[in-house]
Amino acid sequence: MILCVCPSPAVDVTYHVDHLHPSGTTRVREVTERPGGKAVNVARVLHRLGEPTRLVAPAGGDSGQQLRHGLDAAGLSAILVPSGPATRRTVTVVEREGGGVTTLVEPAALDCWPALLDFVEAGLDGAGVLVIGGSVPHGVPEDGLAALVSAGRRRGLPVLVDTHGPWLLSALAAGATVVKPNVHELVAATGDDDPVRAARELAHSSGATVVASLGPDGVVAATATGAWEARPAAPLTGNPTGAGDALVAGLARGLLRDPDAAGRPERLLHDAVALSAAAVLAPEAGEVDPAHHAEQLAGVAVRALDAAR
Amino acid sequence: MILCVCPSPAVDVTYHVDHLHPSGTTRVREVTERPGGKAVNVARVLHRLGEPTRLVAPAGGDSGQQLRHGLDAAGLSAILVPSGPATRRTVTVVEREGGGVTTLVEPAALDCWPALLDFVEAGLDGAGVLVIGGSVPHGVPEDGLAALVSAGRRRGLPVLVDTHGPWLLSALAAGATVVKPNVHELVAATGDDDPVRAARELAHSSGATVVASLGPDGVVAATATGAWEARPAAPLTGNPTGAGDALVAGLARGLLRDPDAAGRPERLLHDAVALSAAAVLAPEAGEVDPAHHAEQLAGVAVRALDAAR
Repeated sequence: MILCVCPSPAVDVTYHVDHLHPSGTTRVREVTERPGGKAVNVARVLHRLGEPTRLVAPAGGDSGQQLRHGLDAAGLSAILVPSGPATRRTVTVVEREGGGVTTLVEPAALDCWPALLDFVEAGLDGAGVLVIGGSVPHGVPEDGLAALVSAGRRRGLPVLVDTHGPWLLSALAAGATVVKPNVHELVAATGDDDPVRAARELAHSSGATVVASLGPDGVVAATATGAWEARPAAPLTGNPTGAGDALVAGLARGLLRDPDAAGRPERLLHDAVALSAAAVLAPEAGEVDPAHHAEQLAGVAVRALDAAR
Repeated sequence: MILCVCPSPAVDVTYHVDHLHPSGTTRVREVTERPGGKAVNVARVLHRLGEPTRLVAPAGGDSGQQLRHGLDAAGLSAILVPSGPATRRTVTVVEREGGGVTTLVEPAALDCWPALLDFVEAGLDGAGVLVIGGSVPHGVPEDGLAALVSAGRRRGLPVLVDTHGPWLLSALAAGATVVKPNVHELVAATGDDDPVRAARELAHSSGATVVASLGPDGVVAATATGAWEARPAAPLTGNPTGAGDALVAGLARGLLRDPDAAGRPERLLHDAVALSAAAVLAPEAGEVDPAHHAEQLAGVAVRALDAAR
């Protein structure tokens, strides 16, 4: 089973409008709402793929109830830890005319950290991989993310972390097995704007495997001793939202089958990059069509990069 | 008791942001949420003033639960009729820099119209005034608003309606006692852009009393036989949202004390315009400070307009 922990889940609301009128009133044509947040999206992709998955996340207020109903509707097994602050929403306004996409992100907060940690500890009993994904909300102690990573590592599980900023560094310091920054997060963490060099550097200094998503250019992976790139057969256009989460889902299920692949990421990249590419082709963020996945699998090229780069 | 019917209540969400980034991502600094919709706001003001008030509205989905919790927190007595479609939200984005206010309004729908009408009929048993306020959502039959108005009129109650467009005309045709358009709604209903002439015209053709809000200029009231204007002591600056709802609340409580004043609106205007002015001075939409109300009451000037205008 893959245990996914999402410290800052959300109810993702999408407003379809003809045109957004800043400083005016805009009528919303259509509203869609669904559970969101990085590890929630990862868990959903894994569940759709038939992988045994469990989610742990805080939930509060009426939006927390809505999160619960959305997860139930998706058939996802979730432990929602009661929290005082209401679960945040994100509102994305999609304009039919002009195609502008405007996102409003509410702040996230929780007040249930010790209980959440306990539920994660309990959930780890049946787990083969621990995935931690998303930003870290107000109310999590400074060493909170490190405590989550340590909980997985103490049981010898691969721990896969997708977060950013100081939390990324804290996860690495606590022994995260694999981290998945995007190129901006990678540059921010290292100060080096060459992604291959930056990934190698971060892998070397931490001992972790770094898999960085480069958008249409695929991914670069690095360990202390090697680096690889993986690309889809052709750059894809479509819906890039959720492609990173599908990539993490692919890495997680690879690690469930083959825990040693944490140190040999080249074994994981085929499936993970194909899943990510299939997510780009899906009309809705974070969905994956198995037919697309199968198609993309055939086209992904993985190659080792020589040490000179 | 004043029975307030809100066919399209809302959860009003306010996002405080530094600056809205159209086609980008905006972090929300602070979120406030509360029940909204015209007759909901009217009921809240009446309740704060200590008037016996009851609200009837449809409610659906998790946002309907949130509406329920918000009304409970405000201490408002409400019959929420279960409806399939989720209660709509409005999202208002208030920018700290530049002061822009951007509003997104979700569409409203209900599927419980016959039940709602039954609850209104039952609620009318103890009522002295019927207030109907807000837009009319999808799912209400064409003669729906007329049926509400008729239910009140059949019992001999004053019926006060605040709506717009074809619904305003339908309410007038069904015998609404008092209607409260704003100046834009008045112009749209009559095609006449002189508010005094338009109010007289509408009152004359319908037999109803028309009280039109003119923003900082106060109100104009007209019956088939006379017209009046009422102004605060000085034009007020502040928060105009909810001023119209406070005006309706003032008219409603005047009608509860003195049902004959429906045909003599000059008796209602002092209190109603002072309440509206107090709402403009309140920091939060639709709140009324009794001290402001008392102050404003002293300054409101009501005068009859001669027939030449």
